Amino acid sequence: MNLPDLASIRAAHERILPYIHRTPVMTSASINEMAGCSIFFKCENFQKVGAFKARGAMNAILKLTPEERSKGVATHSSGNHAQALARAAKILGVPSYIVMPRTAPEIKKRGVRAYGGEIFECEPNLAARESTLADVVRRTGATEIHPFNNEDVMEGQATCAKELFEEVAHLDFLLAPVGGGGLLSGTALAAKYFSPGTVVIAGEPAGSDDAYRSLKSGKIEPAQSDTIADGLLTTLGTKTFPVIRDLVKDIITVTDEEIVNAMRIIWERLKIIVEPSCAVPFAAVLKEKSRFAGKRVGIILSGGNVDLERAAKLFSGTKA
Amino acid sequence: MNLPDLASIRAAHERILPYIHRTPVMTSASINEMAGCSIFFKCENFQKVGAFKARGAMNAILKLTPEERSKGVATHSSGNHAQALARAAKILGVPSYIVMPRTAPEIKKRGVRAYGGEIFECEPNLAARESTLADVVRRTGATEIHPFNNEDVMEGQATCAKELFEEVAHLDFLLAPVGGGGLLSGTALAAKYFSPGTVVIAGEPAGSDDAYRSLKSGKIEPAQSDTIADGLLTTLGTKTFPVIRDLVKDIITVTDEEIVNAMRIIWERLKIIVEPSCAVPFAAVLKEKSRFAGKRVGIILSGGNVDLERAAKLFSGTKA
Repeated sequence: MNLPDLASIRAAHERILPYIHRTPVMTSASINEMAGCSIFFKCENFQKVGAFKARGAMNAILKLTPEERSKGVATHSSGNHAQALARAAKILGVPSYIVMPRTAPEIKKRGVRAYGGEIFECEPNLAARESTLADVVRRTGATEIHPFNNEDVMEGQATCAKELFEEVAHLDFLLAPVGGGGLLSGTALAAKYFSPGTVVIAGEPAGSDDAYRSLKSGKIEPAQSDTIADGLLTTLGTKTFPVIRDLVKDIITVTDEEIVNAMRIIWERLKIIVEPSCAVPFAAVLKEKSRFAGKRVGIILSGGNVDLERAAKLFSGTKA
Repeated sequence: MNLPDLASIRAAHERILPYIHRTPVMTSASINEMAGCSIFFKCENFQKVGAFKARGAMNAILKLTPEERSKGVATHSSGNHAQALARAAKILGVPSYIVMPRTAPEIKKRGVRAYGGEIFECEPNLAARESTLADVVRRTGATEIHPFNNEDVMEGQATCAKELFEEVAHLDFLLAPVGGGGLLSGTALAAKYFSPGTVVIAGEPAGSDDAYRSLKSGKIEPAQSDTIADGLLTTLGTKTFPVIRDLVKDIITVTDEEIVNAMRIIWERLKIIVEPSCAVPFAAVLKEKSRFAGKRVGIILSGGNVDLERAAKLFSGTKA
């Protein structure tokens, strides 16, 4: 395994900067008062395609050889990675092939097509996704860019925390959500190299707490999927798990109710749109206030792609 | 009348800067493509208390004498000005007395109380508001700070456009919403002094188009109130109208349907929360695309204080 290091994360950042946003860091006096600590929100909901995924996908394609690029890239994803890969590919003139379950929301498919991605539909299960992807790769010669279990993707995601460290000094903690672990492993590596005094912690939905259980057991545990945080349903990868095991201090799990409450506070106080998965680390801070009391806490807000009607339904199930 | 000029707007900006946010300017490639012009959104939804009103209220109190401050400030408002005045007063150790209709939403009252404002409830009509306010002023000796018909408030609101001109050069157009005209008159004065080549245009709800009619007739016309843009229901003031008449090129009216559509695009593409009134100028640009085609267009996003359940109802097509 060829893990990202200080020099390679720096190089990745220079490589992708012309194609991504250096996203803003937001603070809120009323949120700090409520949480009892100083929180610095790194707003990847303002990133291209509305999520940090733009970083890793762009880095991975930029590192391909011209010959590899000419044959295209492929992935299976129904989430933000699909759009991120299609966008990066389009900008660089590379064909992209996206395998999606036929049940994926039409808006996600439209998003991929708008970036020129070619969609291959399959049955909504992992075996069908993998066999369809293998078939596409065999026929086209495209390079598979996995959403998270890929060193170049992890390296690209690491640039997000790097930017935050450059803007905000002396963070005691940095929190990110964990699904497959691409963002979390990149964040942990960035902390190791750029801010070794910062403790990295993940937030995870209690209804899909496989990373939490994996840290406890010392091996990759399978995911369940009983949570509204639909970006965090995946199991850790063989490349992300060892990094997380070695560099992430702890994982805090939160209920869906806590996630919706945190999401609502972010919408109302910061006046920004974040998706449920994105609110998980802030929910974790609110849940364990005493641990963070008086500290300087970075939180990566991972993305803002949420259907407004769906969000409204989530909010209407909570106490106003 | 003692209208703000170049020097006084500069002085106001220096005066209030320690107490307000210099708000960011956002752009979106997909919105520019959709609108056919380059739009620069000045994000006052991120301002303290969630709206530009923080500027004018702070400027007005800072200009009071110590003796005036000791007796407090008073206003009648159920909107953003109430919170803005209470907040500015609290920071400066000044008592604040806010007259609100007893029917005002509880959340608005809580907001004012959280800033230490003392609320005086009255019947929900203008006569009751004015007589209650007069009574409060008589009993306390407080200085009335009108939400918009006040030169110091207009001067404070002018600092918003000044910031935008400092950050974005060569704007062909600058749009603001118009209710009582505090923001619009301040914006027009800022353009006159800091960017005379910029044409100032207002957006106004068709269901409350009194400013539009006032511009046509040459005198202040009464407001109606049949629109979801509840921050823009007021009639122009005797101090704001002459400035608007002389310096604002045009007013574009938009329907509630156009307002909701514009608001949804801002939420979905910029990933930020804006209130219905705030979406009116962007709706105006989308309505008259040919007029703005290829131009550099500034838009002041005035505020982000919207009840999430209400917004959800607007998006789902039901009248909230």
